[in-house]
Amino acid sequence: MSIITALETFDIRFPTSMELDGSDAMNPDPDYSAAYLIIRTDAGDGHEGHGFVFTIGRGNEVETAAINALRDHILGADVEALLADMGATWKLLAHDSQLRWLGPEKGVMHMAIGAVINALWDLKAKRTGLPLWELLAGMSPEELVALVDFRYLTDALTPDEALDILRAAEPGREARKAVLRVEGYPAYTTTPGWLGYSDEKLTRLAKEAVADGFAQIKLKVGASLEDDIRRVRAARAAVGPAIKIAVDANQRWDVQEAIDWMAHLAPYDIAWIEEPTSPDDILGHAAIARGVAPIPVATGEHVQNRVVFKQMLQAGSLQVLQIDAARVAGVNENIAILLLAAKFGVRVCPHAGGVGLCEAVQHLSMFDYIAVSGTKENRTIEFVDHLHEHFITPVDVHDGAYWPPSNPGAGNEMLRETLAAYVFPNGPVWKESL
Amino acid sequence: MSIITALETFDIRFPTSMELDGSDAMNPDPDYSAAYLIIRTDAGDGHEGHGFVFTIGRGNEVETAAINALRDHILGADVEALLADMGATWKLLAHDSQLRWLGPEKGVMHMAIGAVINALWDLKAKRTGLPLWELLAGMSPEELVALVDFRYLTDALTPDEALDILRAAEPGREARKAVLRVEGYPAYTTTPGWLGYSDEKLTRLAKEAVADGFAQIKLKVGASLEDDIRRVRAARAAVGPAIKIAVDANQRWDVQEAIDWMAHLAPYDIAWIEEPTSPDDILGHAAIARGVAPIPVATGEHVQNRVVFKQMLQAGSLQVLQIDAARVAGVNENIAILLLAAKFGVRVCPHAGGVGLCEAVQHLSMFDYIAVSGTKENRTIEFVDHLHEHFITPVDVHDGAYWPPSNPGAGNEMLRETLAAYVFPNGPVWKESL
Repeated sequence: MSIITALETFDIRFPTSMELDGSDAMNPDPDYSAAYLIIRTDAGDGHEGHGFVFTIGRGNEVETAAINALRDHILGADVEALLADMGATWKLLAHDSQLRWLGPEKGVMHMAIGAVINALWDLKAKRTGLPLWELLAGMSPEELVALVDFRYLTDALTPDEALDILRAAEPGREARKAVLRVEGYPAYTTTPGWLGYSDEKLTRLAKEAVADGFAQIKLKVGASLEDDIRRVRAARAAVGPAIKIAVDANQRWDVQEAIDWMAHLAPYDIAWIEEPTSPDDILGHAAIARGVAPIPVATGEHVQNRVVFKQMLQAGSLQVLQIDAARVAGVNENIAILLLAAKFGVRVCPHAGGVGLCEAVQHLSMFDYIAVSGTKENRTIEFVDHLHEHFITPVDVHDGAYWPPSNPGAGNEMLRETLAAYVFPNGPVWKESL
Repeated sequence: MSIITALETFDIRFPTSMELDGSDAMNPDPDYSAAYLIIRTDAGDGHEGHGFVFTIGRGNEVETAAINALRDHILGADVEALLADMGATWKLLAHDSQLRWLGPEKGVMHMAIGAVINALWDLKAKRTGLPLWELLAGMSPEELVALVDFRYLTDALTPDEALDILRAAEPGREARKAVLRVEGYPAYTTTPGWLGYSDEKLTRLAKEAVADGFAQIKLKVGASLEDDIRRVRAARAAVGPAIKIAVDANQRWDVQEAIDWMAHLAPYDIAWIEEPTSPDDILGHAAIARGVAPIPVATGEHVQNRVVFKQMLQAGSLQVLQIDAARVAGVNENIAILLLAAKFGVRVCPHAGGVGLCEAVQHLSMFDYIAVSGTKENRTIEFVDHLHEHFITPVDVHDGAYWPPSNPGAGNEMLRETLAAYVFPNGPVWKESL
């Protein structure tokens, strides 16, 4: 038996606001950040579990404190027992009756639980010698169902229904794994579309995106209608009619405003409207979806948990479901959400970008393709070409696709030099700029 | 001009788990706690602003860290400017683009904003020489509407509609203020009903509640159906047919489970079923409300913000709306919620108890009665007789009613001796027990 000997946290921040990378209608000057943790054991196998919550700067210290609040559940625990029953481990953290008051199951505390859970999955995958997507795609339907907390889900998805979904996908697993290695998983890029970029930069980057093989780009909108029309028109002119253009309002609008605004952008053939309003507004999204049809509504990067996703599916609030690796309580809850999406027949196109979100979320889409939905038809993972150089296994994105990682782990691990250089506020990068 | 010179925080915890006070189906052993703050100025008038987030123990340090994350918005700010336009001050905090990522508008960060906003209202009320309820009830409809952030609300409530509601209530304000001083505001008590109490203790406390003049009691349910039937029957036998008995499941059930369980309790004439399922499940609550009718569904103490309350009203998810002084982003957001409830004609019966929640929330109901809904018909504020002795202006509850406080302030201020004794983990109370 080996035990967990350390849970170390780091407040890591990148001064991205200096370049306006990541700028949108709600987030004018983000400093992409990670509340980061490393779990160590006394197993003597050299393996660590790494995980993080992505934030955009201020408050990253609060998120780090929330991860530290989980330390007592983890330190000294039996590693094999924790990793053998990750469903029970999830409940151990998510059902802590005192910590639960701080959500429940939302915001700072819930994301912290996700980071710890993801670090444990990273450790489990490394100990198994597999990348996370392959580890998950090799688990039996029964094992996968046991990972999910069905509390509050059974009016939409029962364990038996989840089993049926997973069993139906089981026969094709090996064939799809082979296809994945040949075709990759489709990617789209948001790199051209940040709100802080000039029209010239937008046009140049949009053309580069097409040259790089992307079949879809995404533009930030919502600050100025006049600007949006001009920028969408410029993008359409740059990429031609065959490339998809999605737009993303980052929660900027009220319900009627969203419908009215989108009427002006509809002529440019919009692939989806993302985050038109509050991520909490299930009924508002449903009204917007009716009002902007046939343009699909996409949301999810700020959807707090599986209970809200469940309702968005029940209400027809979204036609594109955007999971995020670091918003909900980790891999387990994202599996619940993938199962819900499969039950409702809604496509999943993950949110990524930020710091490490691409590295992490690709595993979930690849797992979904092999073992849950069984399809990558009309699905695509967001790609933003920022900050990958800080990870020990940066994503491999080329020819418009994510290519399946082969290194063991969940993709969360940053370079030691990065942790040393970007730690806030005492790392050399920050000491210099503050 | 005076400026804010200090924002001091305290991690205050009471070892309530030793007595099983506050025990329910989801919270077996809470240590009632407050992430507490004091705002000081250089005005030389001796006034401070006090505020807090109520938590139940572990994680109170995370909530305290979140309050500290707001320090830079407050320290050095012009006191008069902040207090003169509390609507702008609310947006200053709630719209911080980087901190917003940690919610948005939910959980740890949102509650921290609420604590700071409430501390500023406490300071404003003290400087005005009025209790908060009277300060608010003296503001014009235009001033009150300016306190509210209507973002994400306009599909249900516009500023003009809010103005109409407030103007309609304006002529009767003075008369209702006089009635309030004579009649008080109705209270009900949860003291008899904690899940950890024996049947004998439940029966004794239920009879005491009736003797004390309460017209309603509340019992915790949801752990064991057999126990619940026995306990509700015992309570009904103790109080007789004229006293209302509400039950509270503290989010324990799934949708169908809630409907089935309540069918067994319905014969005992249940005043409402509170928190039957996840506070995030708007559609689930609506289905339960249809399934348990005519028993009303009550919820709110964990409802994260005005956007979720809006939808619960739109969907018919609740028939009793339970505001909480320390869950949403403070007085301003609770005014938005009171206006939404008035628009939809739904009664408001606040959640209280915990630490200081009674002291704080009474101001909102009294303000609502005078200036918003204009009625206290069928409305009642929760009362739990715990920990009031720690406040400089403890609630005055007798003859089954809250009596309007006359001391200036918002009711949030704890005794200095309490702050010294209960600070975690180094206060004498904790040093002794740890």
